Amino acid sequence: MIRQIEIPRRRFLIAAGSTGVAAALPPIAGAPSQAQAQTPAAKPLPAYVSWKDADAMIVHTSNTLETKRTHFGTNPITPEDRLYVRNNIPPPNDSIVADRDAWEVEFEGVRKPGTMKVGALKELGLTTVAAVLQCSGNGRGFFSHKASGSPWLVGAAGNVIWSGVPLSAVAEAMGGIADGRKFITGTGGEEIPKGVDPKTVMVERSVPIAALDDALLAFEINGKPISLAHGGPVRLVLPGYYGINNVKYLKKLAFTEAETSVKIQRTGYRVRPVGQKGAPSQPSMWEMTVKSWVTHPLKASNDGPVQIYGVAFGGAEALKGVEVSIDGGKSWKPAKLVGPDLGKFAWRTFVLAANLKPGTYTIASRATSASGEAQPEEFPPNERAYGHNGWRAHAVDVTVS
Amino acid sequence: MIRQIEIPRRRFLIAAGSTGVAAALPPIAGAPSQAQAQTPAAKPLPAYVSWKDADAMIVHTSNTLETKRTHFGTNPITPEDRLYVRNNIPPPNDSIVADRDAWEVEFEGVRKPGTMKVGALKELGLTTVAAVLQCSGNGRGFFSHKASGSPWLVGAAGNVIWSGVPLSAVAEAMGGIADGRKFITGTGGEEIPKGVDPKTVMVERSVPIAALDDALLAFEINGKPISLAHGGPVRLVLPGYYGINNVKYLKKLAFTEAETSVKIQRTGYRVRPVGQKGAPSQPSMWEMTVKSWVTHPLKASNDGPVQIYGVAFGGAEALKGVEVSIDGGKSWKPAKLVGPDLGKFAWRTFVLAANLKPGTYTIASRATSASGEAQPEEFPPNERAYGHNGWRAHAVDVTVS
Repeated sequence: MIRQIEIPRRRFLIAAGSTGVAAALPPIAGAPSQAQAQTPAAKPLPAYVSWKDADAMIVHTSNTLETKRTHFGTNPITPEDRLYVRNNIPPPNDSIVADRDAWEVEFEGVRKPGTMKVGALKELGLTTVAAVLQCSGNGRGFFSHKASGSPWLVGAAGNVIWSGVPLSAVAEAMGGIADGRKFITGTGGEEIPKGVDPKTVMVERSVPIAALDDALLAFEINGKPISLAHGGPVRLVLPGYYGINNVKYLKKLAFTEAETSVKIQRTGYRVRPVGQKGAPSQPSMWEMTVKSWVTHPLKASNDGPVQIYGVAFGGAEALKGVEVSIDGGKSWKPAKLVGPDLGKFAWRTFVLAANLKPGTYTIASRATSASGEAQPEEFPPNERAYGHNGWRAHAVDVTVS
Repeated sequence: MIRQIEIPRRRFLIAAGSTGVAAALPPIAGAPSQAQAQTPAAKPLPAYVSWKDADAMIVHTSNTLETKRTHFGTNPITPEDRLYVRNNIPPPNDSIVADRDAWEVEFEGVRKPGTMKVGALKELGLTTVAAVLQCSGNGRGFFSHKASGSPWLVGAAGNVIWSGVPLSAVAEAMGGIADGRKFITGTGGEEIPKGVDPKTVMVERSVPIAALDDALLAFEINGKPISLAHGGPVRLVLPGYYGINNVKYLKKLAFTEAETSVKIQRTGYRVRPVGQKGAPSQPSMWEMTVKSWVTHPLKASNDGPVQIYGVAFGGAEALKGVEVSIDGGKSWKPAKLVGPDLGKFAWRTFVLAANLKPGTYTIASRATSASGEAQPEEFPPNERAYGHNGWRAHAVDVTVS
């Protein structure tokens, strides 16, 4: 019954949103971008994430921390204490994770609307999914047009295992979805500052109802209750969708006829040419695209055998494969995917064994998704610098001696 | 070349080791065993594992900590801070993980023996495997014959993702394995107390060379460098083999013609009838057997919908399926396996949705491996209380109100 009202799955190729915009000057592969050169001196971890691995994180602000490219390792899982953090407004008080099962979620747009406590939601079903979580602006630091927002490089992304109740099971338990609903709209439990119009700051996002197939209300991440920083006690998880849509501290879940009218949806997270204002007619940062980056070696390596590795994912569809170039894209070799396949929404570690003589190498990776979409060489700029997946900007220069 | 000298893979059915021993009285399902009743008051975490999640652990001694049955969650991964710890002798000083890449491993039984640093080993290959890590004595607390050793219940086990270099790649890099080698023998880097015959305490274990197919020298666990407590900077990982064989702080790896003669191999970890001494002729605790246990609900539940879940694994082979009983084994229903299949050596979360009326239920799970081996109802005692996988003792009594 729930499945009958799906609308066609829409995935926007972000590049299409900036048609007609002059391509940015090709960046010099491996050269530090302005953002890299400006990497701030280490700031202390904010109190609510004091348990993070400080050595692994770049602290941009108290609400924005990214994983260092050197700290992704070789394993498909990103530990929670190395996972990036991006909060649009400060998280709620941590008292909300003291009694997790007592947290209430309100449901609307179902035949029997009402509220349910987390403790009861947990008994309605169980699912587990490994998925890439990635900020819309990951890679912003590789653009040269000085977009506003954190200058993320590669580290506003991670691959984690969520578990919780399938959203479809919750909807069924509440009598099924009401007629005519085309969107899933999640509302976060952040406290809205007084004197501010809530619509200008609240975290409320809508995605096409097709996302219901894989959506879950997640209580656990990587085998533990979700921390406050990552959305505990309950987070709306939409595998394949950019981070912003995965609403933390979920306090309301509505099946709606239209997208929410809050700022973050109407004009925020919209892809448009540089200089334009956001508008509902522009593509929203919903489904992710194919992407990869090398994580080793990054700067220097000894001559002889070396394992060139990194991470790759298909975005909203499965990963087909990854190629690696050690000559800046002149030639490519297929890399090997290692470790268990955690499913279509997860990333995989890729590796290419090489034997490098002394010299300088520009190492790049290029992933292709199941439908055959490959990372482009260049990625044109867009006003807010979203969705960069161009392989050339993500390449690294490595000196072998 | 390396593969030519494999000997047939041997897997001992542990029960066979105790033939002729009178079966223990059937335990009362769900009733607390002596061990459970004696669960000690919470001891503080030892300093070297002060980073563990204290609420999730039962501290038996400074070298033996298990995960509480209440803390496995619904996710297939056991976080490192909830993973059981079992050290035979105290771990080395943590200075050995300060410069991980500098740690040296000695290799013998290859055509070009020598030492290699971790930094160089990492460049020889890359593999990742999810695997159950389980102490030989997990379940000892369910036996009634008062065997010596920690009274582990279900928590001396976890499921983790390792990554590192395939041992076969290392052997190839060192000229291949010397002729006539039938065992992989790993030696740990623990400091041997002065005045003690090293052979009586050192951690050195041999396994059949058939284990080479899946063996790795692991540097990472769950996406991070392996902690000292779990064997960093490098651990020999033998997927499908009991924990003891997965030698921590690996300082020597030898391909040998015979099993090592140290006590832990000759007479330790041998399965024999109660009252008998250990001897090399008895089965060694090598490959694991099929096993499962429920982790929710454990004692009480509200009436109405409930998700009965737990973990299950095939041991040294893949898991085929799991059945759940809510009436103490009178009737069984197939459970659903949830989440990504992490490979044959990993465990999976199983779930059976039920709708329970007030009353008392004895909930049991029974896993079957790919070859059709199922958990037995009863598991006969053996001197050291190894390898318990009987489903009745692992059942729980749950009161629904």
